[in-house]
Amino acid sequence: MTTPQGRHFLQIPGPTNVPDRVLRAMDRPTIDHRGPEFQALALRVLAGIRTIFKTEQPVVIYPASGTGAWEAALVNSLSAGDRVLMFETGHFASLWKALAERLGLQPEFIAGDWRHGADPAAIEARLREDRGHAIKAVCVVHNETSTGCVSPIGAVRKAIDAAGHPALLMVDTISSLASIDYRHDEWGVDVTVGGSQKGLMLPPGLSFNAVSEKAVAASKTAGLPRSYWDWGEMLAINAKGFFPFTPATNLLYGLDAAIDMLHEEGLERVFERHARHGEATRRAVRSWGLEVLCQEPAHYSGSLTAVLMPAGHDADRFRGTVLDAFNMSLGNGLSKLAGRVFRIGHLGHFNDLTLIGTLGGVEMGLEVAGVPHKAGGVQAAMDFLAQQQESQAASHAAE
Amino acid sequence: MTTPQGRHFLQIPGPTNVPDRVLRAMDRPTIDHRGPEFQALALRVLAGIRTIFKTEQPVVIYPASGTGAWEAALVNSLSAGDRVLMFETGHFASLWKALAERLGLQPEFIAGDWRHGADPAAIEARLREDRGHAIKAVCVVHNETSTGCVSPIGAVRKAIDAAGHPALLMVDTISSLASIDYRHDEWGVDVTVGGSQKGLMLPPGLSFNAVSEKAVAASKTAGLPRSYWDWGEMLAINAKGFFPFTPATNLLYGLDAAIDMLHEEGLERVFERHARHGEATRRAVRSWGLEVLCQEPAHYSGSLTAVLMPAGHDADRFRGTVLDAFNMSLGNGLSKLAGRVFRIGHLGHFNDLTLIGTLGGVEMGLEVAGVPHKAGGVQAAMDFLAQQQESQAASHAAE
Amino acid sequence: MTTPQGRHFLQIPGPTNVPDRVLRAMDRPTIDHRGPEFQALALRVLAGIRTIFKTEQPVVIYPASGTGAWEAALVNSLSAGDRVLMFETGHFASLWKALAERLGLQPEFIAGDWRHGADPAAIEARLREDRGHAIKAVCVVHNETSTGCVSPIGAVRKAIDAAGHPALLMVDTISSLASIDYRHDEWGVDVTVGGSQKGLMLPPGLSFNAVSEKAVAASKTAGLPRSYWDWGEMLAINAKGFFPFTPATNLLYGLDAAIDMLHEEGLERVFERHARHGEATRRAVRSWGLEVLCQEPAHYSGSLTAVLMPAGHDADRFRGTVLDAFNMSLGNGLSKLAGRVFRIGHLGHFNDLTLIGTLGGVEMGLEVAGVPHKAGGVQAAMDFLAQQQESQAASHAAE
Amino acid sequence: MTTPQGRHFLQIPGPTNVPDRVLRAMDRPTIDHRGPEFQALALRVLAGIRTIFKTEQPVVIYPASGTGAWEAALVNSLSAGDRVLMFETGHFASLWKALAERLGLQPEFIAGDWRHGADPAAIEARLREDRGHAIKAVCVVHNETSTGCVSPIGAVRKAIDAAGHPALLMVDTISSLASIDYRHDEWGVDVTVGGSQKGLMLPPGLSFNAVSEKAVAASKTAGLPRSYWDWGEMLAINAKGFFPFTPATNLLYGLDAAIDMLHEEGLERVFERHARHGEATRRAVRSWGLEVLCQEPAHYSGSLTAVLMPAGHDADRFRGTVLDAFNMSLGNGLSKLAGRVFRIGHLGHFNDLTLIGTLGGVEMGLEVAGVPHKAGGVQAAMDFLAQQQESQAASHAAE
Repeated sequence: MTTPQGRHFLQIPGPTNVPDRVLRAMDRPTIDHRGPEFQALALRVLAGIRTIFKTEQPVVIYPASGTGAWEAALVNSLSAGDRVLMFETGHFASLWKALAERLGLQPEFIAGDWRHGADPAAIEARLREDRGHAIKAVCVVHNETSTGCVSPIGAVRKAIDAAGHPALLMVDTISSLASIDYRHDEWGVDVTVGGSQKGLMLPPGLSFNAVSEKAVAASKTAGLPRSYWDWGEMLAINAKGFFPFTPATNLLYGLDAAIDMLHEEGLERVFERHARHGEATRRAVRSWGLEVLCQEPAHYSGSLTAVLMPAGHDADRFRGTVLDAFNMSLGNGLSKLAGRVFRIGHLGHFNDLTLIGTLGGVEMGLEVAGVPHKAGGVQAAMDFLAQQQESQAASHAAE
Repeated sequence: MTTPQGRHFLQIPGPTNVPDRVLRAMDRPTIDHRGPEFQALALRVLAGIRTIFKTEQPVVIYPASGTGAWEAALVNSLSAGDRVLMFETGHFASLWKALAERLGLQPEFIAGDWRHGADPAAIEARLREDRGHAIKAVCVVHNETSTGCVSPIGAVRKAIDAAGHPALLMVDTISSLASIDYRHDEWGVDVTVGGSQKGLMLPPGLSFNAVSEKAVAASKTAGLPRSYWDWGEMLAINAKGFFPFTPATNLLYGLDAAIDMLHEEGLERVFERHARHGEATRRAVRSWGLEVLCQEPAHYSGSLTAVLMPAGHDADRFRGTVLDAFNMSLGNGLSKLAGRVFRIGHLGHFNDLTLIGTLGGVEMGLEVAGVPHKAGGVQAAMDFLAQQQESQAASHAAE
Repeated sequence: MTTPQGRHFLQIPGPTNVPDRVLRAMDRPTIDHRGPEFQALALRVLAGIRTIFKTEQPVVIYPASGTGAWEAALVNSLSAGDRVLMFETGHFASLWKALAERLGLQPEFIAGDWRHGADPAAIEARLREDRGHAIKAVCVVHNETSTGCVSPIGAVRKAIDAAGHPALLMVDTISSLASIDYRHDEWGVDVTVGGSQKGLMLPPGLSFNAVSEKAVAASKTAGLPRSYWDWGEMLAINAKGFFPFTPATNLLYGLDAAIDMLHEEGLERVFERHARHGEATRRAVRSWGLEVLCQEPAHYSGSLTAVLMPAGHDADRFRGTVLDAFNMSLGNGLSKLAGRVFRIGHLGHFNDLTLIGTLGGVEMGLEVAGVPHKAGGVQAAMDFLAQQQESQAASHAAE
Repeated sequence: MTTPQGRHFLQIPGPTNVPDRVLRAMDRPTIDHRGPEFQALALRVLAGIRTIFKTEQPVVIYPASGTGAWEAALVNSLSAGDRVLMFETGHFASLWKALAERLGLQPEFIAGDWRHGADPAAIEARLREDRGHAIKAVCVVHNETSTGCVSPIGAVRKAIDAAGHPALLMVDTISSLASIDYRHDEWGVDVTVGGSQKGLMLPPGLSFNAVSEKAVAASKTAGLPRSYWDWGEMLAINAKGFFPFTPATNLLYGLDAAIDMLHEEGLERVFERHARHGEATRRAVRSWGLEVLCQEPAHYSGSLTAVLMPAGHDADRFRGTVLDAFNMSLGNGLSKLAGRVFRIGHLGHFNDLTLIGTLGGVEMGLEVAGVPHKAGGVQAAMDFLAQQQESQAASHAAE
């Protein structure tokens, strides 16, 4: 294998390209996690992370992967044998369900076709049936990373309310947080699960639980054994700017920098950027004559786009060609989508030109790999992006 | 408060001073954790970390604090209600016990005075009483970070064998690994718990379980619910160079560098350095007329030294003086030792001159804080260190 | 002004995008420049840099910008009033001439149109006229950074030889070194001037003189006053691995890493990459209906492409649009080209996808800025790059 | 040789220990040196550096070592054959004189014994003799790095004035700037020469000329050829926030951070710290029974202390022992002091504990190397430093 040339394009849907500013912030000596300098840092990031989840309630920060935060959400609020309603949006929803089973819960799946987000009507219908309120929690993946479909969380909230059901609402925002509009408080979510390595632009190693009062109340009686993930001690000690066990200090340095960067750009502008890149990508995909996996326009993702390979062509072979020829990593198809889709991550620290480079790598990769397609995808994306810039400039001029 | 001058001395017993080489290794873009470059890294660190534990058996690497690895050791190998024999070496042994209780186990404490390591004879006696083998595991902290006492793990192994007891042996090496001689295989340990932020010279955020075949066998039937911490899937996927969930890639970069550094210095030389610094520190403490907390010379720690304050003087006030006047963080006394001891960390990326600076800060701090003491501690340490260098030079010359 | 999004595209023809590996190598504590560790480093980079110039003769490394190395070349080998023949390839050739004048030399310019490299025939003709050998040196810019035209240095050498003229040959390779094939020894160059911030992928701050035996001999009698730039003491002390004054140690760390990276990729492969990107860029330019400044295909540059703006459109306004809308810096037109051309740097740490992003930024920028052009430039570049990858893959398969 | 343990102590009198914050500031991609982001940076550092020189006049920043700034001072303001009065404070004064000779000037040395700073009375006497004002400049080294003696620049100014002599006053502050009180404007200095790698805490690679109006006026008619070092174009272009040739951008990032750090600590507090460390070091030296090279208390240096070795003992062999045994670099004796003195650098990013470690390394090194000395040096330093902290605390309490 020859040495790759230039800078790698990491266009999987996370971990994402970590900005230099975040890496440099982390590249500092660790400090005493029981001292005043740490305390100031902790109070700052504990407050700052709330603004990202759009909540005024506490956010627990774990030194752990996102999978740990999934587990934390469940073990803090539920008891062995509890029923949990989950929606099969794709691979990650399935993993969360398997995790719930391993913990001794009884998850129930509303079947999905892996090409749409969750269906609020189906959730409402199921909850209405559950007159005894056996279901203790509804779990939905906001942005299903395996498919690029976004579930309408606000509508799920309304569905639960319409059913008059007391279940907790738990949402996985691992690949949507700080990329796609999300409102923990406004949408009445009880536990929001997040991770560091996607829209937050950090390396992996931190994960989050934003918790409502109702969730905290549930945790007082929840029976699953827990210690590392326990909210109680964490929230009590966090209030003073400390942690019950050694925190991942250097990742907190990075989180501090990332929160600043997001606010400097402006969260709404961050969301708009991701939406723009999603649309540009889909225009490219269609121009190539390929098919976007997500079938519902209202569920299109700004974080990633999963693309169906033409029949008879293996997505992983294609991804290998792109990696070897163009030094770019694309996301693979997971479980039942293995080999059938590739995923283009366009989230995190990213811009129009990086997207054009990314789409250029896909288009040239299709050519080099001999995958049937039409040219013009990058052109379509450029047409759209240029037009967006023009309208933006026009609207600035009009101000 | 005035701005501190110069470089901070982080002389708590961990997190330790992270070497530039490790920080710089971590200061790189995250890569695709499902790609070939990651795979090569993972296989390298998974093999390398075994050499640090001195084991040929697998070592599980968690994106988590050491507390998580404590939990992992228990939930993988035990079932609800299982009896666990633990030894009260100090604060961290007590925390581990509390954790076991929270998980629904029945830990039993052999009382200790927080001034010695674990007593193998007491363990043997208790196990001999347990004719029905109700005790499923014996848990010992190798280096008790709250007291600076080292437990004789080899002797504990022999005690268990002498009692003919089948309990698993679990050892916490969080503050001894890569600082104090430790031999997972030779001592027949079943689960060794480790962390990244001490002798491994990394920031916090990784922790470890080195697991014996017997432990893995126990995990097949152990009944505590688990998912994040589960060894089974981890070991299966690790074998191919991957992880079941997103690993803390940048910390793995650092781990790779740290393992190289430890082998370049030589593990035995690393242990000798820590032992030397422990002895130099104790000589200083005695010269000051103060008392080393650890009362058993055979249990003295090379990682840290806990020092008793003279009656009527508050250790935390003294630590505050040292921080303000000399820009050095010392470790605090924990739970029942709060205010009564301060702890000098001398582990990790450290050398003779940094130790002299550290001891100088303590000696001057005692003076500035008005704590009764005699001068001459640094002098005693220097006398010892110079003499060590002379004998080393002599032995090199003799070669 | 809104905060830029994502990673900046620095597509001026230098300074170039510094690779993380080089930045991280520089991000280390400075060491004693009179100690053994420094000596090993110095001997390594002094040997390594010769391989980049393709010389077995010494290369002097200055802590200075490239302008300093221009001055060094002249003051070491010439005396006040000496005649120097220079070729007007563009702005930088003009600056070098102005510098020679300021030093009290008598430079003579062979006029050029800023759209071609140097003309060996014109040089030969002028040297033939100079029967008295009043001309002491011939100075040529290898890659004229203001125009993107490459001068044929091998042919210049032959022209001097054909004229039987003893003048020294001095060549500026500031923007060609490690990007475009260059052979100090084979082409009989006496002084080659280089800089760190282009193909060497370093920040600015180091510059170079590769010196022939003939040049060193000339320096023994050259009369211009000099001290900082003096080769004599430098070469004597360099031989032992040291420098006569404090070197820019951290930049040397970076140079060490950069030399390794160039050899890992392979110098010939580096040249091929730059040539490929030059051709792809020119195809894009022509597809846009714009004109490449360089008029002689044999002189096309792999480092940068200067593009003429359509009449009535200001290049700097266009560049401002690209910076604001797409977070990319393009090079400006210099002196008589100001406002009339923009320059696309495609040198250094760069690859196909970064080029596509770059060209995408130009094409979209033309649209947003309302500059008349045709679409299809990026498409033309992609067609070419994909085809190159296919032939490369085919040739690998045939091996 | 065995691998060194822990962090290196770089206790030569420069380059100094670069703070992480400065290294991290430099560890960023280079930006377009003709763009708006660079312009803001340049205007900030060009203003900031004036505060360090305590001048409201311009400071020229060269991408060059300090030696270059020596040359710049001379070539900008003098003409071939000009007489320059210099004072032989030590090795660096001698090097500056040799440089002046190489440039065609006629430097005249007032002899010194390398154990005192410059003598204003001798300068005044010589200038009074020079009735024809043949002497065009007086050049003095503020802190002679080879000896650790400080020249009284304010008194030199008065001496020149008392003699009614129009000579320019040029001062080398390479190892005093930002360490020892210095006042370019108040002391009426015409050219102050500085460097980056000492009190400014940067890596080597930048140097400075602070220039008075009188110096700038002199440069209009000064006849030495110059281009790279020329103030004229530099000052004109600096005024707009740019440079006439590519600046060492990443070092400017570091300079920006260093200026901030100096002001956060407070310049006067920085000077006090250096003075304190000088005094502590001298107390240690005397306690060892060794001799400080500098013989005039009023000339003692806060930047470094040169120490005479006992007769019959080689300083370089001692330094080798310290490097091997304790991983510390000490400064060597230069030219006529070679082997006879070693130099302890205590400048830059440094604090009490680092000093204690440093002095500990010297004291233990004397022991290990078998150099006759008395113990107690570190103790004496600690006694002094603790007492300083106590008086400081007392004075704060009294506020």
